[in-house]
Amino acid sequence: MRQAMAQAEVGDDDYGEDPTVNELQRLAAQFLGMEEALFVPTSTMANLIAVMCHCQRRGAQLLVGREAHLHVFEQGGVAQVAGVHSQVLQDLPEGTLDLDELESTVRAGYGSRYHPRSVLVCLENTHSSAGGRVLPLAYLREVRLLADRYGLHIHMDGARLMNAAVAQGVAPAQITQHCDSVSLCFSKGLGAPAGALVAGCREFVAEAWRMRKLLGGGMRQAGVLAAAARVGLERMEETLQRDHSNARSFAQGVWELGSPICSVDPSAVETNMVLVKVAVPWLSPEKLCECMQAVSEEEVAETGRAVSVRLFPWAAHSLRAVWHCDVSAQDTQLAANKLKFVAEQCWRERGAVP
Amino acid sequence: MRQAMAQAEVGDDDYGEDPTVNELQRLAAQFLGMEEALFVPTSTMANLIAVMCHCQRRGAQLLVGREAHLHVFEQGGVAQVAGVHSQVLQDLPEGTLDLDELESTVRAGYGSRYHPRSVLVCLENTHSSAGGRVLPLAYLREVRLLADRYGLHIHMDGARLMNAAVAQGVAPAQITQHCDSVSLCFSKGLGAPAGALVAGCREFVAEAWRMRKLLGGGMRQAGVLAAAARVGLERMEETLQRDHSNARSFAQGVWELGSPICSVDPSAVETNMVLVKVAVPWLSPEKLCECMQAVSEEEVAETGRAVSVRLFPWAAHSLRAVWHCDVSAQDTQLAANKLKFVAEQCWRERGAVP
Amino acid sequence: MRQAMAQAEVGDDDYGEDPTVNELQRLAAQFLGMEEALFVPTSTMANLIAVMCHCQRRGAQLLVGREAHLHVFEQGGVAQVAGVHSQVLQDLPEGTLDLDELESTVRAGYGSRYHPRSVLVCLENTHSSAGGRVLPLAYLREVRLLADRYGLHIHMDGARLMNAAVAQGVAPAQITQHCDSVSLCFSKGLGAPAGALVAGCREFVAEAWRMRKLLGGGMRQAGVLAAAARVGLERMEETLQRDHSNARSFAQGVWELGSPICSVDPSAVETNMVLVKVAVPWLSPEKLCECMQAVSEEEVAETGRAVSVRLFPWAAHSLRAVWHCDVSAQDTQLAANKLKFVAEQCWRERGAVP
Amino acid sequence: MRQAMAQAEVGDDDYGEDPTVNELQRLAAQFLGMEEALFVPTSTMANLIAVMCHCQRRGAQLLVGREAHLHVFEQGGVAQVAGVHSQVLQDLPEGTLDLDELESTVRAGYGSRYHPRSVLVCLENTHSSAGGRVLPLAYLREVRLLADRYGLHIHMDGARLMNAAVAQGVAPAQITQHCDSVSLCFSKGLGAPAGALVAGCREFVAEAWRMRKLLGGGMRQAGVLAAAARVGLERMEETLQRDHSNARSFAQGVWELGSPICSVDPSAVETNMVLVKVAVPWLSPEKLCECMQAVSEEEVAETGRAVSVRLFPWAAHSLRAVWHCDVSAQDTQLAANKLKFVAEQCWRERGAVP
Repeated sequence: MRQAMAQAEVGDDDYGEDPTVNELQRLAAQFLGMEEALFVPTSTMANLIAVMCHCQRRGAQLLVGREAHLHVFEQGGVAQVAGVHSQVLQDLPEGTLDLDELESTVRAGYGSRYHPRSVLVCLENTHSSAGGRVLPLAYLREVRLLADRYGLHIHMDGARLMNAAVAQGVAPAQITQHCDSVSLCFSKGLGAPAGALVAGCREFVAEAWRMRKLLGGGMRQAGVLAAAARVGLERMEETLQRDHSNARSFAQGVWELGSPICSVDPSAVETNMVLVKVAVPWLSPEKLCECMQAVSEEEVAETGRAVSVRLFPWAAHSLRAVWHCDVSAQDTQLAANKLKFVAEQCWRERGAVP
Repeated sequence: MRQAMAQAEVGDDDYGEDPTVNELQRLAAQFLGMEEALFVPTSTMANLIAVMCHCQRRGAQLLVGREAHLHVFEQGGVAQVAGVHSQVLQDLPEGTLDLDELESTVRAGYGSRYHPRSVLVCLENTHSSAGGRVLPLAYLREVRLLADRYGLHIHMDGARLMNAAVAQGVAPAQITQHCDSVSLCFSKGLGAPAGALVAGCREFVAEAWRMRKLLGGGMRQAGVLAAAARVGLERMEETLQRDHSNARSFAQGVWELGSPICSVDPSAVETNMVLVKVAVPWLSPEKLCECMQAVSEEEVAETGRAVSVRLFPWAAHSLRAVWHCDVSAQDTQLAANKLKFVAEQCWRERGAVP
Repeated sequence: MRQAMAQAEVGDDDYGEDPTVNELQRLAAQFLGMEEALFVPTSTMANLIAVMCHCQRRGAQLLVGREAHLHVFEQGGVAQVAGVHSQVLQDLPEGTLDLDELESTVRAGYGSRYHPRSVLVCLENTHSSAGGRVLPLAYLREVRLLADRYGLHIHMDGARLMNAAVAQGVAPAQITQHCDSVSLCFSKGLGAPAGALVAGCREFVAEAWRMRKLLGGGMRQAGVLAAAARVGLERMEETLQRDHSNARSFAQGVWELGSPICSVDPSAVETNMVLVKVAVPWLSPEKLCECMQAVSEEEVAETGRAVSVRLFPWAAHSLRAVWHCDVSAQDTQLAANKLKFVAEQCWRERGAVP
Repeated sequence: MRQAMAQAEVGDDDYGEDPTVNELQRLAAQFLGMEEALFVPTSTMANLIAVMCHCQRRGAQLLVGREAHLHVFEQGGVAQVAGVHSQVLQDLPEGTLDLDELESTVRAGYGSRYHPRSVLVCLENTHSSAGGRVLPLAYLREVRLLADRYGLHIHMDGARLMNAAVAQGVAPAQITQHCDSVSLCFSKGLGAPAGALVAGCREFVAEAWRMRKLLGGGMRQAGVLAAAARVGLERMEETLQRDHSNARSFAQGVWELGSPICSVDPSAVETNMVLVKVAVPWLSPEKLCECMQAVSEEEVAETGRAVSVRLFPWAAHSLRAVWHCDVSAQDTQLAANKLKFVAEQCWRERGAVP
C-alpha cells in the first residue's frame, strides 16, 4: 500500500486533474451502482456533505436512529453546520429502525406547514452501535418503499458498507440500489491511512463538490491517498473475510469461557465487531478495558506471555472489540486468552473462586 | 383589554423607551423570580432566543423530550437558526423525562471531545403533548440537582407556566427557581392578542435583546401589546381557575358518558386540556373532530341546538380539547352534550345500538 | 388609529384566520403589484425572511451596498441566521450602486464552482444611510435588466418605500415592478406602533410563512396591529407629503443660516430625512446632538422657549434629522430655531463672534 | 518526499497518536511562535476553523479585505458554515488595508447593541489577489495596536506565509507575533501533495480540534501527509528563494520586452507571483492564457520549440503567473520566450508590426 502511494500518478484534484483520484472515483461509482463518486478526507465529511446536498431547502428534517454514528459521534454537524433538525427514532438491536415508528413520524408533519419538512432518512450499514450488524436487504427494500411513498431521500452511512457486502455475499450495488447516496470509509476495515467517499447521482455529486470545497476537503494531489484506498478495495474481499472470521472465533471463545463476568451473543456477531457484555455490577467496562491493556508479572508468570489488548468501553455495561487487517488469527487467540486470564483474575480478586 | 391597549402609554421599545413594556418586564421578572425579562412577539421566539443565549459556544447539544413543542412544532429552529444539535429523550406520560436516561445521555459525552457538549436541558411546563400535565416540583428539584452535577443550564418552555402555577397553587417563582430561564406566552390561556416573554439573569437578557433584534422581534411601540398582556396577567388567577374547572367538568362528563367510542382519564386532567382517546379503530380523530365542528338538522331536531366545537386531532388515536378565557362553563356543557350526540350518532351509523 | 385597534375584528393569524390581517395583506399585495403579502412584526424580520426565501440553495451570495441597513443594522442576520455570504459594493451618494461594479462582481463568480453563487441583489429605497434618497426608476430598470442577464433575484428593502412613492408621485407598484420581493415598514413614517410586511409571488410567500414561523413572528390576534397599519396606509399620502415638506423647510432654514459650524445640501433632501454636516473639527456630531436635546436657562432667556430636539449622530462628521407624523411644521420651525441658537452658542463658546 | 511518505511512522491521529503528525505540529508551533498547531487537510479548512474558534459568541463580525481569498474563494464558509457576518474593507494595492478605514469601521459598532460585534480581523500574507505582496512588519505592528485598542483578534491567512518570511528574510515567528492565529499551507509553494495547519494558543487549538472533527478533517494515519509536509518545510528556504528569483527574472524579461500588449511592474514582484497587465482592449486575459498554453507549428518553426505555459486569467485586464518548486529557471526562461512569441504573434494578427 505504501508502495502504491509512493508511485501514484497525481495531479491537482481541486481542478479535477488527479488521475489516481479520478480512477478511484470512477471505480467506486461503478461498484456502488451510482452515477458518480467524490473522494473526501473522512467519512464524517462524506456524511455531512450528503446531508447538506439532500437538504437544500430550508426547514429540512432528518430522520435518524438515536444511536447512529452520524447523530452521536459527528459533533452534531447536521445541525451545527448544515442547519438540519433531526427527529430521532429508537434503534432496534439489529441496527434497524421500526418501520411503523418511522412512518408515523414522517406522517405527523407530512404536508403540514407547522412542521419541518421530512426529507431524508439516514441508515447506517453495518450499524456500529449495534455491534456491526448488517441491515437485511428485505428491510432496505421496505425503507425504500416507505421513502418513496413520502418523497424522502435515503442516505446510507456506509463507512462499513464493504463489511456488510462481504458478510451478505452480495455486490455492494445490491445494497446501495435502495439508497440515493452512500458514504464509504477507506481507513477502517479497508486499511488505508485516510480517505472516504460519497456517491450519488451526477447532480448530487456536482453539489457535493461545492460542499467539499466549502468544508475544506478539496485537497490537491490527493492521489497519494486514493492510491492507498484503491489497494484497500482490491484486497478487501480477503481481509474483511478474515476480520469477520476472527471476530466470530473470538466471540465463540468468550462464549465457551462461560465466565460469570462477561458474556457475548455469538449469533449477533455478523462482521468485524464483538460486543462483550459485562455481567457483574462491580466491574465497569472501563476497568475491564484497562485490565485487558495492562500487562503484569503475574500474567507473564501464569500464561508465559505479556499481551496488551485495546478494547473500547461501549455502553453502561458493555465493551467493544473491533478487528482490522493488522489483527491476525493468532492475535485473536491471544486476545481471547487474555480475556480468560483477566476474567479469572477479577473474579479471584473479588474473593470468589472462578 | 382592548381599552387598556387603546390607552397604553408607549415609546420606542427598540430604544428601551416604552414605559408599558418596561413595566410589564419589571413585573414579570419579579413574579418569575428572575433578574430581568424581555417582551417578544411569540413564545416560539422566546424559546429560540433562550436556546441561542444558553448555547453560545459552538458544538452545543440540547437535551429535550421527543414530543416537546420546541422540538416538534417550532420548525426545528434550534438547528436551523441556532445550529444546536438536539439529543432526544423519551417523554413519560406525565410530561417528565426519565432522570436515569437523562443522566446516562449527558454522561455519554461528558468531558469527551468526540461528542457535542451537553449544555442545556429544555423542560415544558405545562407539557402540551402530554395533555397539559404539570411538572411536579420535586421532579424539577431533581432535574436541577442533576443539571448542576454536569454544569447544564435549564430552560423552561413556560408558554403555559401560569396554568401550572395556578394548578399547583404556588407562586410562579417557586416553579422557576429551578430554571436558568423561562419563556411565557400571553396569547394562550392569558387571552392577550399576541406577545410572550423570556426571562433570566441580567447577562442572559442583555444577550436576549440582541437575539430579538437579530430575529426581527424588536418592535417599536410594543406597549399596545404589553398593555393587553398585563391585563391578562392581572385576571389570570380567575380565568385559569375557571378554564381548569371547565376542563375537569368536561372530562368528567365524557367519562360518565361511558361511550365505547371515546374515553378520557379524568385524573390526567390537571389544567386546561383534555386528551380524548378514540377507542375504536374505525373512527379516526380527524373524523371525530369534523363531526364535532359540523352542525346538522338532525342535531337541531334531537338536541334543539346547533353547536360547533373545534377540537384538534392529536395523535394516531386521540384528540385534544383546550379551554381559554372565552369558553364559559355553559359552552363546556354544550360541548360535552355535543360529544354525547356525536358519539351516539357515530355508533348508530356503524349499525350498533349505543 | 388607537380606535381602529380597539375595534379590530381578529382571529388566529397563525391559522390564517385573522380577517384584519388578511385584508391588510390583500390590500398591500394589490398596491405593491405582488401576488401575496405577509404581515410580520418588524421590517428586520421582513428582510431576513426575504433573504432566506430567495437563498434556498446552499452557497448563495448576496450583493448589497456596504452601508445598507440590512448589512449594517440588522445584526448580520443574513449570515448569522440565513448562512448567506455577502459581497459588498460601494454605495454611491444617491443611495444607488455602480452598475459596472455590480456586473463585474457578479461576473467574477458567474458559473464558477470555485465561488459562491450570486443569487440576490438587495436594494434599499429610500436609502437610509444616504439620507432618505429615492432610487430613480431608470436605475431600477437597469438593475432589473442586469439581474435578468445573470438570473439574479432582486429584493427591495422598502421600509421607507412609501416615502419614495410619494416623493416620486408614482404608485408603489411602479417602483416594485422591478423587484421580486419587497418589504415595507408600518412603524416608521406610516406611524403605526409595530408591524411590517414582505411581499412577493405566491410561492415566495408560502415559504415566507414558514420562515416567519421559524423566527417566531407568527403572532395570533395580529389584527390589532394590522388595523393600525391600515390606518397608517390610508392617511399616508397626506402625512408623508407633510413630512417631506417639513424636512425640506428645515434644510432650507439650516442652509439660510449659513453657519460656519453646520451645513446641509437642500438638493439632497428628497424625503423625510436631512443629513446635517458638522463642518468644524472641534465639534463632534455627538456633542451637537446633546446640545440640541438639552434645554438651558440661557435658551429660555434668549429665545423665550425651552425646546428639546432629538437628532442622531450619523457618521464621523454628520448628524441626521428624521420627520414622522407627530412632528408638525411648527415643531420643525422650532427645531430650526434651536439649531440656530445652538450653533451660535457653540461658536461663541469657542471664543469667536458668530 | 514520496520516500518520506512511504517510510512515515503513523498512528491514529484522531486519537492524537500519529507520531509524524505530532512532530510536525510541535515543529510548526515552534517556528510560528505559537503554543500549538493542528494539521488539517487544506488551508480553506484551516481558515474556516480559525474563524469559528475566534467567533464563538453569536453576532460576531469579521473584518476582511474585499478581495481576500477567505472572502472570495472559500465558498463563503464564514457565513455559510460559521454564521459570521463580514464587513468588508477596500484592499490597497500592497495587499494591506487602510488603517483609518479599519478603525472607523470597528468604531461604528463599538459597544453598540445595534451592531454585530467586531471580533476578528483577517489578514492575508502574502496577499494573493495583490499578486503575492508581502505585508510590511510595521503595518502588522500597527494593526496589532489597533486590534488591541478594540479587543479584536487577528487571524493571518498564511497559506503563503513562508514566502513572506523568505522574502523578508525573517523568521516566521517575527511575522506571526502580531497575530492570534495563523494558517499555513503545505501544498502550494512548499510542494507537499496536501495538508495545511492552523496554529494559536493552547485553548484555541483545543477548540480547533473539535472544529476539525466537525468539518470532517480528522483523518486517521495522517502521518503519510505530514511526512511530506515536513520535507517541504525543510527544503523551503531553498525552493522559495528560487521561486522568487524565477518570478523576478520573468517579470524583468516581460518588462524588457516592452510589448504594447502586456506589461508588468517588476517592483511589485515580491514573491512567487507576477501579475501581467494586458494593455490592449482587443485582447482578453482569457485569450492570452489560451495562446500561452497552445502550441503550434508556427511556434516550432519560429522558435524551434513547442512550449505550453499555464497561466490564470486574473482580473478584467490581467493574468497571473505563479512559480512552484517544479518550475526551474530554464522553464522560466522558456515561458518568457513564449510570451514574447505570443505577444508578437497577437500584434501581427491584429495587422500591426511589433
